[in-house]
Amino acid sequence: MSEFKPVRFVDVALEGQFWRERLETVLTRTIPSQHVQLGKQGVLLSLTLPNQSLPLSVPGNEHDSGQVLWDSDAGKWIEAASYALSHRRDPDIEAWIENIVDDLEKAQAPDGYLNCWYLQREPDKRWTNLRDNHELYNLGHLLEGGIAYFLATGRRRLLDILERYVDHVCKTFGPNPGQKRGYCGHQEIELALVKLYRLTGDRMHLDLAAYFMNERGRQPHYFDQEAVARGENPRDFRAKRYEYNQSHRPVREQTKVVGHAVRAMYMLSAMADLAAELNDDSLKKACEVLWADVISSKIYITSGLGAAAANEGFTKDHDLPNDTAYAETCASVGLIFWAHRMLHLELDGRYADVLEQALFNGALTGLSRDGERYFYSNPLESDGRRSRWAWHSCPCCTMNSSRLIASIGGYFVSASENAIAFHLYGGVSTNIQLATGNVFLRETSAYPFFGSIRIEVSPDAPAEFTINLRIPGWAHEAEASVGGCAVDVTACTRNGYLAISRLWNAGDTIALELPISPERIYAHPSVKQDIGRVALKRGPLVYCVEEVDNPGGAVQQLKLPRDARIETVERGDLFDGVVTLTASAERIEDQEWGDSLYRNAPPIVSGCRLTALPYYLWNNRAKGSMQVWLLES
Amino acid sequence: MSEFKPVRFVDVALEGQFWRERLETVLTRTIPSQHVQLGKQGVLLSLTLPNQSLPLSVPGNEHDSGQVLWDSDAGKWIEAASYALSHRRDPDIEAWIENIVDDLEKAQAPDGYLNCWYLQREPDKRWTNLRDNHELYNLGHLLEGGIAYFLATGRRRLLDILERYVDHVCKTFGPNPGQKRGYCGHQEIELALVKLYRLTGDRMHLDLAAYFMNERGRQPHYFDQEAVARGENPRDFRAKRYEYNQSHRPVREQTKVVGHAVRAMYMLSAMADLAAELNDDSLKKACEVLWADVISSKIYITSGLGAAAANEGFTKDHDLPNDTAYAETCASVGLIFWAHRMLHLELDGRYADVLEQALFNGALTGLSRDGERYFYSNPLESDGRRSRWAWHSCPCCTMNSSRLIASIGGYFVSASENAIAFHLYGGVSTNIQLATGNVFLRETSAYPFFGSIRIEVSPDAPAEFTINLRIPGWAHEAEASVGGCAVDVTACTRNGYLAISRLWNAGDTIALELPISPERIYAHPSVKQDIGRVALKRGPLVYCVEEVDNPGGAVQQLKLPRDARIETVERGDLFDGVVTLTASAERIEDQEWGDSLYRNAPPIVSGCRLTALPYYLWNNRAKGSMQVWLLES
Repeated sequence: MSEFKPVRFVDVALEGQFWRERLETVLTRTIPSQHVQLGKQGVLLSLTLPNQSLPLSVPGNEHDSGQVLWDSDAGKWIEAASYALSHRRDPDIEAWIENIVDDLEKAQAPDGYLNCWYLQREPDKRWTNLRDNHELYNLGHLLEGGIAYFLATGRRRLLDILERYVDHVCKTFGPNPGQKRGYCGHQEIELALVKLYRLTGDRMHLDLAAYFMNERGRQPHYFDQEAVARGENPRDFRAKRYEYNQSHRPVREQTKVVGHAVRAMYMLSAMADLAAELNDDSLKKACEVLWADVISSKIYITSGLGAAAANEGFTKDHDLPNDTAYAETCASVGLIFWAHRMLHLELDGRYADVLEQALFNGALTGLSRDGERYFYSNPLESDGRRSRWAWHSCPCCTMNSSRLIASIGGYFVSASENAIAFHLYGGVSTNIQLATGNVFLRETSAYPFFGSIRIEVSPDAPAEFTINLRIPGWAHEAEASVGGCAVDVTACTRNGYLAISRLWNAGDTIALELPISPERIYAHPSVKQDIGRVALKRGPLVYCVEEVDNPGGAVQQLKLPRDARIETVERGDLFDGVVTLTASAERIEDQEWGDSLYRNAPPIVSGCRLTALPYYLWNNRAKGSMQVWLLES
Repeated sequence: MSEFKPVRFVDVALEGQFWRERLETVLTRTIPSQHVQLGKQGVLLSLTLPNQSLPLSVPGNEHDSGQVLWDSDAGKWIEAASYALSHRRDPDIEAWIENIVDDLEKAQAPDGYLNCWYLQREPDKRWTNLRDNHELYNLGHLLEGGIAYFLATGRRRLLDILERYVDHVCKTFGPNPGQKRGYCGHQEIELALVKLYRLTGDRMHLDLAAYFMNERGRQPHYFDQEAVARGENPRDFRAKRYEYNQSHRPVREQTKVVGHAVRAMYMLSAMADLAAELNDDSLKKACEVLWADVISSKIYITSGLGAAAANEGFTKDHDLPNDTAYAETCASVGLIFWAHRMLHLELDGRYADVLEQALFNGALTGLSRDGERYFYSNPLESDGRRSRWAWHSCPCCTMNSSRLIASIGGYFVSASENAIAFHLYGGVSTNIQLATGNVFLRETSAYPFFGSIRIEVSPDAPAEFTINLRIPGWAHEAEASVGGCAVDVTACTRNGYLAISRLWNAGDTIALELPISPERIYAHPSVKQDIGRVALKRGPLVYCVEEVDNPGGAVQQLKLPRDARIETVERGDLFDGVVTLTASAERIEDQEWGDSLYRNAPPIVSGCRLTALPYYLWNNRAKGSMQVWLLES
């Protein structure tokens, strides 16, 4: 068993039905419809300077209209669309992107500055409100878009525009006289700059990312100084506290994950990136402390993050209300980014477990089955009034869904010099260049619904290397064999990965059996909202009960007896095939209750059959109530 | 059995321990300390015009500082203090009131107008924002204060000042040319004017109250017109919808209780007053419809009203969250006002049941045992971070607590020409003038803890009349006797009142036995927050579990088995004597759980003894968690 140091993630071809379907929906429906929505909303027009015809928001009201964020929306759409192009070139999509690039090229100031909102509205006020107005955040998303577009098509006009802008930013920010010692209120530029550095190899890009990270939370506080310079009282910050944007103290001194959940996840992703690129143990250590904090006390079972709408973020430990959960789709996507990067730092199944949990539950839920409707927040309970939106005034989540799914192939496998690791399963194939030569791999499975996994390993020539197979934390008593010979899974598994080192020959086959069966899950007794309640899981999928499958009243009136057997039902007729769970349960009847609000006789309870569906699929049929945490009787 | 038409409520002397203690605390501690707090806050200084030294709020920010409400705070304190004086004259209190009257006299404009905030800040903008700025509301509370002060002391200087102001209001508002067809955004003036009419007999006062009520919700909408006249867009109303102040439609057409709970209760109280004074069946009918709505779907078991902080009011039917319940003390006090007036319209125990429920639970809770700390909102669950305030920037609830308790003697008994009705019990005595002569009554009991009630009936001369005794809705199998002879309670009880008609002789005695025993109460299954939960009641008292009595963790971790016997414990050592409840229960343990947030093994449950305390007494000892609705196992 060799030590695995994952150096790079590898892109794979998606062959399994589960991800083919999601990918195809995003490529053919989500990406084009998002372009239409961006046009309708005015985002595209806002890039065409000057744009007097656009109904611009009134000063002070920029947040409500989301207009200061529109450059980022364009950038995220370009990124998602470019991932689509990397699967299949499309002249329409490319023309739409080129139009945006034309606009950005014209809009760019001679010195490289490029923020359409400021250029249009307040060209003399650039960089005067980093705390609230997202200039660097916007650049970050444009940059991720420009990089993805270049990688998908080889066209580098957008990347060139943005590199000029980055050059301007490098000159503007820094510790030297005449430079600003600022950083963005909404983290994002940092991880984009690391991506740029990985592409360009230009150390200046990495250094700028590190600079922004290191300045964050320094005293005297930049956002205080900046507010005073604007003639404002720093205490009038509408979020009240700098915990909101994680600038309350230097990042290495933070021990609790606080504030706005998406900002936190983007920051932590960049911290992990910088820890890897700079071999910075203090950043890695801070990431580990904050990981432990969020996982032990602040994450929903769906991997949703952020209990409160008020700050779009975290409240106190173990406060996880279900019906009012914010659990923004972006935050779960951000958690996937972070977990992905933690895996980069250290091959540890606890990161992959969370990545998978967030992917199949917190993140996938954000996009409807038809690919054109979105959840911004993802409560774990609904009285029936919640539905996905066709669009949102702040459409950040929409493009986080599409860019994640369109790039999902990058999350399955990673490789080092002489080892390969599988983090996810679901039917993929790829060629990997190891020190010993090229290896073709094909993983075949009906994951996440079934746990029988077969991996064909075909090196061009016989070679010795290690294949690490993730054994999910929820998989008890996994079994594996190579060419029919059993592998001792317990002995060979370390940190959640089964390592198989041997001389591989073309056509060798690994069989991995992950027992997937329904499980009852309980929450820590300090989570008062879940006391007396149980959730159902099967493999990585969290289940919920939806009224459409459980007619007869609100699903909140269902109770699942502790000893009821949970049965698995394959439903080929539903959503192109899905596994549901059923059990004998109890329904609290309200028919006989009458008009009074209170009475001294308990409600009548009748027997019923409960059906549960994977959470990520809820609200794709008839509207109705939904619940993840069921009363247990 | 004679038909009872309650014509008047009668004031009684409080002799029982329960109310003596509350009254004494309010007289000796609450009233003086409130005067100190009003001084500290600036309320008293704000009446001394001009008052340049006062840090006045910035325009647009009046709501946050509460300054536009300060006249009302002064008025409510005078009212509460005057009720105190009616129990026991006090030169200090009288001097404080006289100082306020001096200020008001000096502040009053030559034309009678008297609103200190407008006179000080924007004298030319009187009556330009009835929707938000509470001018008539303030007058209403001053008027209630002036009336109470006159009745307690015979001094009519304040009343004269206010009558001049009312004359000015009568000229200003009305349907004639040059008059404003407006009404107040916060109802209150209407019920104050009815009180004034009952004192003065001046029909103009009653007509003005009716005018304001009838104008409410008329189209074109006054608040729209008024906003346009101010140069504002009516849609910029910060509460968004006129449901907030119940002006969305004419009052007789309202069928659901909506919006701000206190405004709704004050309005409904005035509607019941006007229905009585004007024999207006359409108003009475509207009250009955709205009563049925609130009682069947919007009232907490504690009689708290208003589920949401956002509008300080009602949300949708059956939405009754426990931890975030707003349930403002003022709203429960307002419900008592309304129920009291409904009883005036019709002797029906369902009104008295709610009055009593609101008094002993929703309202009494608002004031601490020591009389100097206050709950503004009254949640039915706390994680331990809730405590009463020493004061509040909007101290409306503080004086609603004191004026209710200082005038509680007016809620026990009412009388008509030839009949008497007891609505509450608790140790009172009074003299009542009937058509047949004077009757002395003395009711002796240890109510609400015990249900043995003895009533001595002593007419000056033998006389025939009816005594109606309320049989609470929660009292099953009550027994009664007169002079030792049993009365057939079932046969003689109608609409919740046992009517005993006979020739009464001095020294006749009624014995009434109301069985008070612990009850389990369940909520309608549509109240999703209470599904699977049970509340404990005993007589009129709702119980809660508090951490101080149930150490070992959050009380949310307790479960009460369905079959556990609830035992009654007399605790002479606690709060001068109280009855607690105890039962064998279960505690969900968190000690053994460990660090993980979720796991597939249920938590360990251990046996324990649960102790419950009357809800109104919570948060008078050590801080800690509290819960009314217990998980039932």
